Amino acid sequence: MPDAIGAGTAARLEAWRRRIDGVLEAALSAHPAAERRLGEAMRHALLLGGKRMRPLLAYATGTAFGADETVLDAPAAAIELVHAYSLVHDDLPAMDDDALRRGQPTVHVAFDEATAILAGDGLQALAFAILADAGCSDAARVAMLRELAHAAGAGGMCGGQALDLAATGNGTASGLEALERLHALKTGALIRAAVRMGAIAAGAGDAERRRLDAYADALGLAFQIRDDLLDVEGESATLGKTPGKDAAQGKATFPALIGAEASRARLAALAAEMDAALAPFGPRADALAALGALAIRRSH
Amino acid sequence: MPDAIGAGTAARLEAWRRRIDGVLEAALSAHPAAERRLGEAMRHALLLGGKRMRPLLAYATGTAFGADETVLDAPAAAIELVHAYSLVHDDLPAMDDDALRRGQPTVHVAFDEATAILAGDGLQALAFAILADAGCSDAARVAMLRELAHAAGAGGMCGGQALDLAATGNGTASGLEALERLHALKTGALIRAAVRMGAIAAGAGDAERRRLDAYADALGLAFQIRDDLLDVEGESATLGKTPGKDAAQGKATFPALIGAEASRARLAALAAEMDAALAPFGPRADALAALGALAIRRSH
Repeated sequence: MPDAIGAGTAARLEAWRRRIDGVLEAALSAHPAAERRLGEAMRHALLLGGKRMRPLLAYATGTAFGADETVLDAPAAAIELVHAYSLVHDDLPAMDDDALRRGQPTVHVAFDEATAILAGDGLQALAFAILADAGCSDAARVAMLRELAHAAGAGGMCGGQALDLAATGNGTASGLEALERLHALKTGALIRAAVRMGAIAAGAGDAERRRLDAYADALGLAFQIRDDLLDVEGESATLGKTPGKDAAQGKATFPALIGAEASRARLAALAAEMDAALAPFGPRADALAALGALAIRRSH
Repeated sequence: MPDAIGAGTAARLEAWRRRIDGVLEAALSAHPAAERRLGEAMRHALLLGGKRMRPLLAYATGTAFGADETVLDAPAAAIELVHAYSLVHDDLPAMDDDALRRGQPTVHVAFDEATAILAGDGLQALAFAILADAGCSDAARVAMLRELAHAAGAGGMCGGQALDLAATGNGTASGLEALERLHALKTGALIRAAVRMGAIAAGAGDAERRRLDAYADALGLAFQIRDDLLDVEGESATLGKTPGKDAAQGKATFPALIGAEASRARLAALAAEMDAALAPFGPRADALAALGALAIRRSH
């Protein structure tokens, strides 16, 4: 992992961050909701201003293999739409019951539960609508749609969330292997799909895709371990959510299972895995390396 | 509309009903959930044995224009998956709060709310996964995926449900035009998508598709008016749900707005519209005509 992110790479990431906000705004405008509050709730969910890690992964992967940014707008938006919908549903009282997200009221608090359920449903459908209009070949569109549907579904993200709910209250009893599987599905599946859709849009080859999968899987796990560490160490103001909540809810975490020191060692090992996976790509993978470094070092 | 459905047509409908149950069962098996209860909840939602009207519309449309049933399995399953997910979410306490569906406990009653939310989410994703693997050209797959995503989203079914929630409690205040728009989105959008996906899979021409749209729109409205009449006239045992619930919840209905007699007259007019739309297709549209007649005359 780079010790410091170069000015040029940082500028590209920032440009993509602005770009995806515009693309998401345009997607909402081009697909208006039939009911006013539903549209407002979807906008609230989408435009609260997250890190946009998943869209940035799609842009960074696709441009590394020669795709134009305009071709990557659709997969970048689609992956963020699915991520945003999952947060809306995960925050519901019947799920994690969170009132605060990125320092803002969650959708069911700002609106109401029924609207939050429908907003999530509508955001998921919009992801597939946007992807069906991606500016690449029909074959690439079908491949991206398949990738996203599998990553989002009961064998991917939804399955991971169900495992998380089933494990909550069990605390550390579930074991390291089960915890890694849970996160490989709950957060890893979408991160992998973001990278894969970028690779599909760019027409990357099989060997390249295998390396990118290895990078994405290490990144997904690193992101989660960092998340767990932040929950132990963090402050509400930086975090935008309530620290210590995982422990209070009896959720298994990496620090709880293996300790904070071993968790940090694992992060370093995952950084090395990402470096090894990206090394053959040279400087064109600089943005991917930077995103890996940011996931590991982030403070919120 | 035919006064009686011919034995041959009735047998075809029954064969498709058995066929789609097998296709849905296979879809669940081929895409296992990562968590046991989530998979069981999705199965519960899907296999309670509804009328399967939407898949039957896809089969009836597609075969009328020469498509093979194997090509129609994916769109038929996808539309039922979206329908099933919408029922799971609509039944939630924060939405319509229904404990009974088709005479069986609803998903959040048989399982729990969190599992019901995730099961609905997983069913929606599965619909797109199945469609991405449909046995037709990439171009047709993209067209069907686009159709389904738009029909399911905030500009379609989700938007209709949001309008319904917003109108609940307003009773008759919302007016006939608003009620028709609500239903054109809430139930009409999926019915139209079922017919359109059958037409896309079969490669039907533009003029044919316009006629099929007219048929589908009349069918969708007729289905809803019949539903409202059943709620007024029906008995719980036949209906599989609680009659009189719409009125108790202050929902606008056609009988409440224009009276039962005028509602029945409107049904007859919609039957004539369906007949006119299908007439040029001759006997190959027999199954579509039968589905129209069933929607108008059904007792549950």
